[in-house]
Amino acid sequence: MEKEEKTSGSEIPNLGLSNRDIARQRLLNRDGTFNSRRVGLPFWETFNFYHYLVGVSWFKFSLIIFTGYVTLNLLFAVVYYLLGVDTHLLGVIANSEFDKFMESFFFSAQSFTTVGYGRISPVGMWTSSIAAFESLVGLMCLAIATGLFYGRFSKPVSKVLYSRNAVITSFKDVTAFQFRIANEQKSELIDVEVRVMFSILRDENSNSPNRKYYILNLEFSKINFFSLIWTVNHIIDNESPLNGLTKDDLTKGHAEFLILVQGYDDTFMSNVHSRSSYRHNEILWNSKFANVYGFDDEGRTTVSLDKISDVE
Amino acid sequence: MEKEEKTSGSEIPNLGLSNRDIARQRLLNRDGTFNSRRVGLPFWETFNFYHYLVGVSWFKFSLIIFTGYVTLNLLFAVVYYLLGVDTHLLGVIANSEFDKFMESFFFSAQSFTTVGYGRISPVGMWTSSIAAFESLVGLMCLAIATGLFYGRFSKPVSKVLYSRNAVITSFKDVTAFQFRIANEQKSELIDVEVRVMFSILRDENSNSPNRKYYILNLEFSKINFFSLIWTVNHIIDNESPLNGLTKDDLTKGHAEFLILVQGYDDTFMSNVHSRSSYRHNEILWNSKFANVYGFDDEGRTTVSLDKISDVE
Amino acid sequence: MEKEEKTSGSEIPNLGLSNRDIARQRLLNRDGTFNSRRVGLPFWETFNFYHYLVGVSWFKFSLIIFTGYVTLNLLFAVVYYLLGVDTHLLGVIANSEFDKFMESFFFSAQSFTTVGYGRISPVGMWTSSIAAFESLVGLMCLAIATGLFYGRFSKPVSKVLYSRNAVITSFKDVTAFQFRIANEQKSELIDVEVRVMFSILRDENSNSPNRKYYILNLEFSKINFFSLIWTVNHIIDNESPLNGLTKDDLTKGHAEFLILVQGYDDTFMSNVHSRSSYRHNEILWNSKFANVYGFDDEGRTTVSLDKISDVE
Amino acid sequence: MEKEEKTSGSEIPNLGLSNRDIARQRLLNRDGTFNSRRVGLPFWETFNFYHYLVGVSWFKFSLIIFTGYVTLNLLFAVVYYLLGVDTHLLGVIANSEFDKFMESFFFSAQSFTTVGYGRISPVGMWTSSIAAFESLVGLMCLAIATGLFYGRFSKPVSKVLYSRNAVITSFKDVTAFQFRIANEQKSELIDVEVRVMFSILRDENSNSPNRKYYILNLEFSKINFFSLIWTVNHIIDNESPLNGLTKDDLTKGHAEFLILVQGYDDTFMSNVHSRSSYRHNEILWNSKFANVYGFDDEGRTTVSLDKISDVE
Repeated sequence: MEKEEKTSGSEIPNLGLSNRDIARQRLLNRDGTFNSRRVGLPFWETFNFYHYLVGVSWFKFSLIIFTGYVTLNLLFAVVYYLLGVDTHLLGVIANSEFDKFMESFFFSAQSFTTVGYGRISPVGMWTSSIAAFESLVGLMCLAIATGLFYGRFSKPVSKVLYSRNAVITSFKDVTAFQFRIANEQKSELIDVEVRVMFSILRDENSNSPNRKYYILNLEFSKINFFSLIWTVNHIIDNESPLNGLTKDDLTKGHAEFLILVQGYDDTFMSNVHSRSSYRHNEILWNSKFANVYGFDDEGRTTVSLDKISDVE
Repeated sequence: MEKEEKTSGSEIPNLGLSNRDIARQRLLNRDGTFNSRRVGLPFWETFNFYHYLVGVSWFKFSLIIFTGYVTLNLLFAVVYYLLGVDTHLLGVIANSEFDKFMESFFFSAQSFTTVGYGRISPVGMWTSSIAAFESLVGLMCLAIATGLFYGRFSKPVSKVLYSRNAVITSFKDVTAFQFRIANEQKSELIDVEVRVMFSILRDENSNSPNRKYYILNLEFSKINFFSLIWTVNHIIDNESPLNGLTKDDLTKGHAEFLILVQGYDDTFMSNVHSRSSYRHNEILWNSKFANVYGFDDEGRTTVSLDKISDVE
Repeated sequence: MEKEEKTSGSEIPNLGLSNRDIARQRLLNRDGTFNSRRVGLPFWETFNFYHYLVGVSWFKFSLIIFTGYVTLNLLFAVVYYLLGVDTHLLGVIANSEFDKFMESFFFSAQSFTTVGYGRISPVGMWTSSIAAFESLVGLMCLAIATGLFYGRFSKPVSKVLYSRNAVITSFKDVTAFQFRIANEQKSELIDVEVRVMFSILRDENSNSPNRKYYILNLEFSKINFFSLIWTVNHIIDNESPLNGLTKDDLTKGHAEFLILVQGYDDTFMSNVHSRSSYRHNEILWNSKFANVYGFDDEGRTTVSLDKISDVE
Repeated sequence: MEKEEKTSGSEIPNLGLSNRDIARQRLLNRDGTFNSRRVGLPFWETFNFYHYLVGVSWFKFSLIIFTGYVTLNLLFAVVYYLLGVDTHLLGVIANSEFDKFMESFFFSAQSFTTVGYGRISPVGMWTSSIAAFESLVGLMCLAIATGLFYGRFSKPVSKVLYSRNAVITSFKDVTAFQFRIANEQKSELIDVEVRVMFSILRDENSNSPNRKYYILNLEFSKINFFSLIWTVNHIIDNESPLNGLTKDDLTKGHAEFLILVQGYDDTFMSNVHSRSSYRHNEILWNSKFANVYGFDDEGRTTVSLDKISDVE
């Protein structure tokens, strides 16, 4: 595939995205997730808890941490309670068995977080040992919780903004396929590369329709800085797989343009990736993207990112 | 080697995998570990404790952490006990010397984890100093323990699934060597590259047999996304080192195909690597991989990863 | 753009740095920041708190951490105070309501940091629960604070020193554009690459002035080690976009040279980037950089980094 | 330089390693450090504290952490002492002013590490506030200490073992320059690349001696796995800068071979780099490296890394 990238419109393998002879639905969603599902493997072989905790919403993440904290403390509370509150926990203030259990629970929480006020303190071999063990367990579990918390907080976000539509328009005497992307964040992206794959169903009315994939040649596929906005441009020349195709052809062929953007984020010091796609009905024909440049009061160039999708 | 990768079947160096004139055993195990051993260096020069603790099983890891925790606390307990429990530890509740030692131990654990209930507290210059020192030591040691714990938890796993067998089969009028790999995890792998090396013993009955290594040219060696499944394909043309070889030749030559898969994991934001190999007796001749695609109830494409090894 | 880098002086896209028909001001500041602004998006979509906290000055960072610490403790103090200090906080020493509130505040701080002296300790269901919750919240928040603190401390700094001016001078019978960079840090930079882009306003007096961007071919664009100093050299041959341009032309065209340096830092084990630029009025014509090499007392080569900008 | 790497013996720039017309001493030490010094910049501009703490010996590192811990606690102890021990620290056990200061010190340590036994506890606005502040400061400072501690512990080590000497020997009818490297660690290195630069002083007896640098073409410059041992091989053909040079020429020219090894460590999931060099007097002429392969009792291939420097 590396060699073929040089030519305009080389066919590439089907990417494992779809059954060869169907896939009339969208392949890649606008948010970059794939529209296919793997089946046949037991849940635990494909599930990764870390992966889940990194990707889940902040609300669910907080709930999981909180629930885990309460559950573990309840478990230890039961142990302390069964070992005997009266004799093995010093300083307990309780009027009932329920109070005693709650004091066990709070003692557990104070050991788990290593806050250890000491109003309640362990006495005797077993309770002291369990408490010493709980502090170690607490430190280890909280390492996961705080590590994930910080990891989620510091995770690079590359909010690449895509224009709502792509356009097929005339440009410098030739027709071109274009879309715009913008760097929504204040950080600089460096060495940004865009790859565009075009997919279409061939012989869609025959008995053996066949989904084909092509990589599209771009006028520029890599830029050094990506500070503001970039109009990605594929010129539809004779060698382009789009050559001669009409709006109707794209619709019949369930055509889709898959976009892959990657670069290096200077602030997060990490590679960032973004995916999106344009389906045939998201292509505007004979439209041109509108100007987004202007000036501020101090004469500096401004770029209106809210106009990224504007066409004229 | 870079230049040669372009041609189909170029010889490459022996990779340091084996003695040139023997190696009739497997070179690379199915799980990606090498079947050779380095000798001659003292243990401590080749051993790396971090490396060991990252790779060891969860059970052994927990045992090591727990044992280290108990051992360090015992050491400090001995110091506190020798410095005198009665005069230098306030609040000790003990009926015997053993009880006093245990109180020293629990005080040590409470200092080490910084839980510091305070029922037992240090008095006097020496015991207070040792306790202040122990808290620092504890924080440092626990940084290693919790760092490793989190590091193991968050370590990228690229569970690349390999088909049980490779096949040599006819494909588009030519014969091809094929195997299938699948991405077992839910994360997307990006820019995945596969390299296949073929190794065979030449002149295996002569006095100077010679193990040769070749890099095999692949129809596609790199794909942009690796969401689901990929059939890796080497076409056996005139320039392939496999050209003209029969099943019998591979067996006599103790042939082996070494596989290296690498890519970028979007979730773990890290490069991932996977290795495996197929020996001559793991090649199915004239078989074809079975279809793995299907539909779910909502009409979405599904891929049955449990059928990855199915042939027809 | 990749292909074009081979030729000397190929045009490249406008980088999204400026409006096509103006930009008479500086494009890139000497410190590597861009001289343009994005507008039109709501503040919260472009703002990233982590990004802000990593980039802010140490003084502001400390102030934010301290203020956050005090604020959160005040919030919890209010809760403890409202739940009742007399009945639910044991050991409070207070003569007035203000004292009670302050004791609540200090108890909160002792719970938040998990120092938990225990002179003040929680009693009763609600206060104990809030305290257990606060310890968890404290650990999570402090993970962010300490993580950022360490992250800022360990952030790779690639202090690339640029000569104050670039020169256009004769060198080996041809004219060349040159500037010097030095590695200010003691760490070694490996595989350092420099890219130079030249930008000039064409037809600047016509109705449609047009800012053009070119990538300049360098005598050497990549070096294996960057230990000390490097004179970056673009030879102005027939194919150079600088060919035939006079000092006056550069001034009229608001010419600017954009510099991008990147490499791998051996100590921080991370990629590092640096940007700078030279405007037309920062070019010295017919000057030559002065010698920076010398010897120390032991006969070792020395490089005087303070002479990096010296010309003769 | 990229293009030139294809040819055997292309000249490269002087790397900023040495003054053009001298440098008769070693350029690069065997351990990979450079034999030159930068001067002229104030200490604080070139010094990076993190960099220093990562590279310093374990003994010095421990000493710095310990000294920092004691110093900070002394500072806070002075503050607590001046604020008044009798009235503002509860539970102090002291017979003298010195005892009171020591109790302040231990209280400080207990706050700094958040162990907070509570035998000594702060009372009153000022002391409580300072204690709350110290716990925050302690957590931040300990984040640096523990972060560095873990960072040093988990730092990738690529102990590349170099043969003591390089050899110039005949190999396949041609003469070749060879040296051996081994992977001392148990981890696998992937995609290992070796680059060899040859440096010699030309016209060393003239008035203008000139140190030249060449990149040497290697038979294989990159291997996929680096499990055990690798003999790096430069064939001295007509285009080699070594062509026609005798042992005497190398000595007169103060010749030196600079070695750069880099790869990806599978265990540490990080790029690793190693540098070394061979001077003219470290080249053995007409020697051949001895065999290092053998078998263990189970018939597996073994590689004796202690024989890496053995020649025959």
